[in-house]
Amino acid sequence: MSKELSDVFKLSRDWLSVQEVVDSVSSPSCGAISVFIGTTREDEADGRKVVGLEYEAYEPMAQSEFNKLCADIRARWQSVTHICVHHRLGWAKPVLSWRSHLLTAMTASRRSSTASAS
Amino acid sequence: MSKELSDVFKLSRDWLSVQEVVDSVSSPSCGAISVFIGTTREDEADGRKVVGLEYEAYEPMAQSEFNKLCADIRARWQSVTHICVHHRLGWAKPVLSWRSHLLTAMTASRRSSTASAS
Repeated sequence: MSKELSDVFKLSRDWLSVQEVVDSVSSPSCGAISVFIGTTREDEADGRKVVGLEYEAYEPMAQSEFNKLCADIRARWQSVTHICVHHRLGWAKPVLSWRSHLLTAMTASRRSSTASAS
Repeated sequence: MSKELSDVFKLSRDWLSVQEVVDSVSSPSCGAISVFIGTTREDEADGRKVVGLEYEAYEPMAQSEFNKLCADIRARWQSVTHICVHHRLGWAKPVLSWRSHLLTAMTASRRSSTASAS
């Protein structure tokens, strides 16, 4: 039986949901899910405080790059099953994780693949 | 200013919450959070189907081993800030991620540390 694979990519101006990315990659055949949450951290550059980051995207190109990334991941780690990336567009301030700007999730049958591939 | 570090370990017979582990490690000084979700996958052993796994723990020893693990992680990756591990006890069937038996979360200022340490 062939394994059904899915690659999900979403750009959104809405707040991102960790549960949503986890649900999109979950599978009874996979025992490991790796999630990465990217937030804007408090930082300084040249003595000036970072107050936020503005994210923009040319969406067709972003989708194309995501497709290439997934192909590369699958070529290197064949046990990876589902991949999901959600990226928020617009203004991102240094806040807690529930206002992240990037969520990635990946499943595989075992942890070693997700940890490396992630 | 010294960085406040936290190590959180919890054994529970309740269902685990991804948001809870994420919240416990979140920090405005950290831009990267790595989360691992362990679930019981559908599998076979010697021709017999896995219908579930039973998790038990001698809690004082589990806490002690967690403390050693955190010390080892911090010795190898100094930028790791907060570490959280929640493990469910009791019976775990092969189901979707929202019924996971293991959640780990870790933050650092940058992703490279969380990916390796996780």
